[in-house]
Amino acid sequence: MINIQTRGSRLFTRSIYRLLSTKTESSTQANHVISNKQLLYTTDPTSPGSIFFLPHGTRILNNLIQFMKNQQTRYGFQEVVTPLIFKTKLWKKSGHWDNYKDDMFKVVGNDMSKEEEHCDNIEEHEYGLKPMNCPSHCMIFSKFERSYQDLPVRYSDFSSLHRNEASGALSGLTRVRRFHQDDGHIFCSMDQIDQEIKNTLTLIKDTYNIFGITDIEFYLSTRPEDKFIGDIETWDIAEDQLKSVLNSTAGEGNWEIREGDGAFYGPKIDVLLKDAFGKKHQVGTIQLDFQLPNRFELKYTGEDGGRNHQPILVHRAVFGSLERFFAILLDHYQGKWPFWINPRQAVIIPINDSHVEVAEKLQKQLSGDILNTEESIAPLTGYNFYVDIDKRGETVGARTKEAIQKGYSYIIMVGDKDIANGTFAIRTRDDKKVKNMTSDEIYNLFVQLEKSYT
Amino acid sequence: MINIQTRGSRLFTRSIYRLLSTKTESSTQANHVISNKQLLYTTDPTSPGSIFFLPHGTRILNNLIQFMKNQQTRYGFQEVVTPLIFKTKLWKKSGHWDNYKDDMFKVVGNDMSKEEEHCDNIEEHEYGLKPMNCPSHCMIFSKFERSYQDLPVRYSDFSSLHRNEASGALSGLTRVRRFHQDDGHIFCSMDQIDQEIKNTLTLIKDTYNIFGITDIEFYLSTRPEDKFIGDIETWDIAEDQLKSVLNSTAGEGNWEIREGDGAFYGPKIDVLLKDAFGKKHQVGTIQLDFQLPNRFELKYTGEDGGRNHQPILVHRAVFGSLERFFAILLDHYQGKWPFWINPRQAVIIPINDSHVEVAEKLQKQLSGDILNTEESIAPLTGYNFYVDIDKRGETVGARTKEAIQKGYSYIIMVGDKDIANGTFAIRTRDDKKVKNMTSDEIYNLFVQLEKSYT
Repeated sequence: MINIQTRGSRLFTRSIYRLLSTKTESSTQANHVISNKQLLYTTDPTSPGSIFFLPHGTRILNNLIQFMKNQQTRYGFQEVVTPLIFKTKLWKKSGHWDNYKDDMFKVVGNDMSKEEEHCDNIEEHEYGLKPMNCPSHCMIFSKFERSYQDLPVRYSDFSSLHRNEASGALSGLTRVRRFHQDDGHIFCSMDQIDQEIKNTLTLIKDTYNIFGITDIEFYLSTRPEDKFIGDIETWDIAEDQLKSVLNSTAGEGNWEIREGDGAFYGPKIDVLLKDAFGKKHQVGTIQLDFQLPNRFELKYTGEDGGRNHQPILVHRAVFGSLERFFAILLDHYQGKWPFWINPRQAVIIPINDSHVEVAEKLQKQLSGDILNTEESIAPLTGYNFYVDIDKRGETVGARTKEAIQKGYSYIIMVGDKDIANGTFAIRTRDDKKVKNMTSDEIYNLFVQLEKSYT
Repeated sequence: MINIQTRGSRLFTRSIYRLLSTKTESSTQANHVISNKQLLYTTDPTSPGSIFFLPHGTRILNNLIQFMKNQQTRYGFQEVVTPLIFKTKLWKKSGHWDNYKDDMFKVVGNDMSKEEEHCDNIEEHEYGLKPMNCPSHCMIFSKFERSYQDLPVRYSDFSSLHRNEASGALSGLTRVRRFHQDDGHIFCSMDQIDQEIKNTLTLIKDTYNIFGITDIEFYLSTRPEDKFIGDIETWDIAEDQLKSVLNSTAGEGNWEIREGDGAFYGPKIDVLLKDAFGKKHQVGTIQLDFQLPNRFELKYTGEDGGRNHQPILVHRAVFGSLERFFAILLDHYQGKWPFWINPRQAVIIPINDSHVEVAEKLQKQLSGDILNTEESIAPLTGYNFYVDIDKRGETVGARTKEAIQKGYSYIIMVGDKDIANGTFAIRTRDDKKVKNMTSDEIYNLFVQLEKSYT
């Protein structure tokens, strides 16, 4: 029940980074320039609030997802793929119907007759388009016998989620109706919470670090005064654990408490980051949940042989909404993507037509394992760098200038001298200084840049 | 408008491979045994026709997707991520409303009042859940100025698709309401069709080959007698091109013609494969389309400077529905997955507790780059093998037997002798013969197996 859409960064306007949207009031000139050059995403009035990721935007999105999948593998998460539509009765069971109905989309078959529509059996024909993944994961947990030895069970899911935000509130990548989360749910016992929260906070810090974001704030929201479920003792134990983890991970005095601000189903930690411009964004979240395991009657067999132990559910996300994190990164980097996540990693400029053949050979080598194979089928695992050729009849100067505008990390020239020497003249987006490197040296550089996330 | 769901394999019952479904009438005993052991997917009455891929099934699905993404990269496709819901007016424009409405799900916001529901403005509030990706790709094509030099433009998309199949027709993985395609659309000029079809047929043959499927049938469906759009000359040119490509790719006499069986919008090639049990399944498809480019007013600037050239649209899929291809593979392999796609690639069995530490070290090494790192963040690119440890107190014999039942490709024992020798006793699922190999040798074997798709 991670509700990342309704909190935080309403003030976040600079990253309203659209390509062909009709709304332009909050876009800065700088972002317009980037958007015209980089072609990352677009929107259309036929699907307000749903993003079309264009090829180069999809590369970034896929990199973010692959990055997180690999980290989640490391932390023992198991990815699942779950349905998008569920009958109303499921949403009643999960509590979304009572608390979240108006923010959901209803789904019905077009073949449903008006008679059926008004019969008592309406629930058999009516679905809700999912706004969150937690019920799906609870259902999977509940379908199998579970023992204390299986815990923690950790599911991750990158499903499309839909929330029926008011159309007036829609804005670029930050206020959308359809989005993706790096969603994860942990089912564990009370004494495992400590380690799981610690792991999540560590991953959050390490992940933001990769993007050069080190200014992070942590907030602990505790039991509301009136409306809460579960007994006070359980809350106290859970809150004490969260405090102790925050002390050891964020450091004492480096987090704030928001008394009484927890959800009615459990306490939570919110993580805010500050981008390169000092703006704060709520991104990661960790929420303990005593309620859903109860609603879905989740059980496991304890060490004592008792079959009625109930796991705690931890909702957690590191990026939060991938669309929103994408927007933060756009703002943060201003289109100057680091090599590893750049959808345009290098461009090769053959000086004239006689250099095209060598340029194409170089392109194949630098593109990495997926393209650089003689087999009829490309391998499953391997490097895949985005290397283009610009062989238009423009001057080298004009092509270089355009390459810089488009945000290529590296520009590589191929001329007679290069071919004779067996090296290539390579420069970065930001530094005019040209180096001469062999194709192997350039390829190894690319591999090293990706490995070090630079 | 690839309509793979309504053709072909209704007879395909052996692969009805369910875990916890209530329908069992068509499942064979053999498949039940596999399903109980391998935990690949499940279903639930709250979302009939939508599959829950469990962790091990998700591994297979992800491998199929990654496999195809890499091949598509090779063939010049650019992946895009597109919305799932579109307002009714889009479906009217695309022609789906007239021809496909009853097979679609309708989506409306729960916040819509009854008044709004009956106002003239209903189209502003009503969406269709997409059954196909083609309109999205046409929209992206139409949003930019296109020149003949940009063609062919090739988009790929792995979006969730929903089709409102009658609930009586739902069955396992083969007749579903929600599924994924390895969908691709090529926008090209008439004289590029030849090469694009050739590429697609080559990829289809090469792909099926990887799965040991070489028995493939090709069918060309030509212009219907009465109802068709476009002029006869265009049809004739297109059909002649398809025939010539089939002759050069499948070989003369190795394909059949279905006169008059084409869609009204263009001729098509259907590809059927025969599985290990001789059953035929329709999988790949290539469909030329003269209609959608017209409906979406797609244009490009030709070599002659004219701005009114219309591209041909080619719909193509290699796997077709990933869910159905998964089912075919289940049937084909009977749970004995080849190493490269096996969700359980190896299990390590420490003889007793004193061997667990070495076993865990071995597990880390054999798991590959994502897990075998000392960095705080796992790399973006690298091998990721699925290696488990079974350290339960059962006998080695019992654990080995269970490992074989679960379908592990390799079983690796760790005992005193192994630790002393620096080698490990390794055997396959099918061959009792034990080899002694160092951890490096085993790891290199895994890499080679994946590289050779065995």
